[in-house]
Amino acid sequence: MKSTLRNGKDEMVVTPWEVMGEIDYDRLSREFGTHIITDELLQRIAKKAGYIHPLLKRGLFFSHRDLDVILDEYDHGKPFVLYTGRGPSGPVHLGHLVTWIFTKYLQDAFNAKLYFQMTDDEKFLINPKYTLTEIHNFMYENILDVIALGFNKEKTKIITDVKNIGSLYEVALKVARKVNFSTVKAVFGFKESDNIGIIFFPAIQAAPAFLESALKGRSVPCLIPAAIDQDPYWRITRDVASKLGYPKPAQIHSKFLPGLGKEGKMSSSQPETCIFTTDSPEVSEKKIMNAYTGGQATLEEQKKLGGNPDICPIFFYDYYVLLSDDKEAIQLRRKCRTGEVLCGECKKNLAEKTKRFLVQHQKKREDAKNNLTEYLLERNGF
Amino acid sequence: MKSTLRNGKDEMVVTPWEVMGEIDYDRLSREFGTHIITDELLQRIAKKAGYIHPLLKRGLFFSHRDLDVILDEYDHGKPFVLYTGRGPSGPVHLGHLVTWIFTKYLQDAFNAKLYFQMTDDEKFLINPKYTLTEIHNFMYENILDVIALGFNKEKTKIITDVKNIGSLYEVALKVARKVNFSTVKAVFGFKESDNIGIIFFPAIQAAPAFLESALKGRSVPCLIPAAIDQDPYWRITRDVASKLGYPKPAQIHSKFLPGLGKEGKMSSSQPETCIFTTDSPEVSEKKIMNAYTGGQATLEEQKKLGGNPDICPIFFYDYYVLLSDDKEAIQLRRKCRTGEVLCGECKKNLAEKTKRFLVQHQKKREDAKNNLTEYLLERNGF
Repeated sequence: MKSTLRNGKDEMVVTPWEVMGEIDYDRLSREFGTHIITDELLQRIAKKAGYIHPLLKRGLFFSHRDLDVILDEYDHGKPFVLYTGRGPSGPVHLGHLVTWIFTKYLQDAFNAKLYFQMTDDEKFLINPKYTLTEIHNFMYENILDVIALGFNKEKTKIITDVKNIGSLYEVALKVARKVNFSTVKAVFGFKESDNIGIIFFPAIQAAPAFLESALKGRSVPCLIPAAIDQDPYWRITRDVASKLGYPKPAQIHSKFLPGLGKEGKMSSSQPETCIFTTDSPEVSEKKIMNAYTGGQATLEEQKKLGGNPDICPIFFYDYYVLLSDDKEAIQLRRKCRTGEVLCGECKKNLAEKTKRFLVQHQKKREDAKNNLTEYLLERNGF
Repeated sequence: MKSTLRNGKDEMVVTPWEVMGEIDYDRLSREFGTHIITDELLQRIAKKAGYIHPLLKRGLFFSHRDLDVILDEYDHGKPFVLYTGRGPSGPVHLGHLVTWIFTKYLQDAFNAKLYFQMTDDEKFLINPKYTLTEIHNFMYENILDVIALGFNKEKTKIITDVKNIGSLYEVALKVARKVNFSTVKAVFGFKESDNIGIIFFPAIQAAPAFLESALKGRSVPCLIPAAIDQDPYWRITRDVASKLGYPKPAQIHSKFLPGLGKEGKMSSSQPETCIFTTDSPEVSEKKIMNAYTGGQATLEEQKKLGGNPDICPIFFYDYYVLLSDDKEAIQLRRKCRTGEVLCGECKKNLAEKTKRFLVQHQKKREDAKNNLTEYLLERNGF
């Protein structure tokens, strides 16, 4: 959906392919018709998990649809499956990991099965410059990142669309029969010049939400953790669900992930604004040291006026991506505001943490090569 | 493509889903930009086969694209694959068999591999009333009809789209990336109210034309025998072929198949106008005895003025479907014109031939149940 709300400053554009401008999340949630996660819901999740995940406490995951319904059903003995995914058109950056780390938290909390969809078909269809082989090379690398996060091997199946189309197609056809061009035009802004593959694709992205129900021949609820820009897909999916007799998939939405560019932008198309999981520690350090910050123009001004952590990618990164602990984060915010800490020092600290994370993650990525096939979907799911 | 040529009498509408009015085939061929089969081409096929097939001699197969190219390449040692298909939305009628009988003639003449596509997905997408299980029941019955015709078991693979999507999807994605909504709108008359599955479907129908090239990793030409109403698909397929580096598929086109209704109509949606392969001999006889003919209104007039075999479904049926021999056909035409033979007698003769055919065909259909799996496509083609 093209949301062209003005928030007094910049035009806000939110579609599954484009996030631009400064985002007013309350307004986005109202416009999309989602609900803000209440403290009560947060506590219900925390109770199952044994702790409140910082991404929940810090409000990165902030909105939902039917999360309450899913939790009620779970409490009445009806387990749900989790579903999330990735479009493999390039390397994974640390921002991507955040949703997946949170998904693992939910998997552990609810002992839930997870379908993780790799949309190689979508990325092939929207990138005329790539061959499928190139997309598959990205995908292989991306899968290593997913596995490296430690998802439950018995409970996680990675769907790669092209290879697993045999498992998805029948459900996708059922979805497609209920969705016409007018709808995808209105929801995604498709034009007549768009190719017929990408026009069909929303049916493929909807399919995993119903896959467990279809394979098991009984109604299995589904919860989708994803950034809120993917919400248009789920609105169509929810609309179709009732027509097909499947449960409406619930969602838990994150805000967009902060990066190292101005206004916290992080985008694979601007590689200097994001740390890729495959970056060498040295490269990551360089990117961080060159990042935009919320600090003042000069050392004197910074000491006098203090910085603004709330627009600072370095602070965001520490807070939302590397998940510094609460005490540390509160202290850093205060020190920044008062000018007690300077940007260079802050960057250096973050660079050290990032390098440590990368070294560990890259080791787990290597180990993942030995486990890869166990995570891949076979014809009949779990 | 909607062809709305007027031929002085009726509006002529030709799309893959609709054939209405009296058809001017020369004009249709000119409008579609195809070529009429020359005597030279006909003789080149006959030479390989050892005889001229009556469907070729009698002009039911009348038009082509690049048949000359395919034959030249064949003469230079480059074999081609055949590709035809069926949309399984109901029982097969004898009219359907005609294209397949001719395809078998080509298979035998050129010792060619054949991909036979069953478009269960298409039929599911365009028929909101059917479940996929219902479509699959039709499909199973239809496959028996195909096998009953005696295709070479070693050289024939039946593709069932939903089950074999794993073999088709990658090629279909390559096609889809090159075809936009504007094109399918212009060619097939798709509207915004059409579902996103049927909009994508032309890519699935194009895929088997390139399947052998894709599986073998080298250029394999393809010849498609089909009724001319399917031509719009092949125009898109040919256009895309060059963009993807596959050979443009050639076509050999039949006229529409005559039936028992007025103006030789035969349509599964008007069951009294066609003989289904599963009709009991008695039912077929009844349908034939109730058919429209080219005869006069009364016995006296028929004897005085004679009938008109060129508009008579009974004559067509004998000539194009049951393929009466040349001498017999010429004699019957003459006798009809002079009033020497009456419609009742003609119908009785045709009913006898049809009953004999059905008894034999139904026996072969039964035998086909034992051979079924050998004809079905496996993941890696032949």
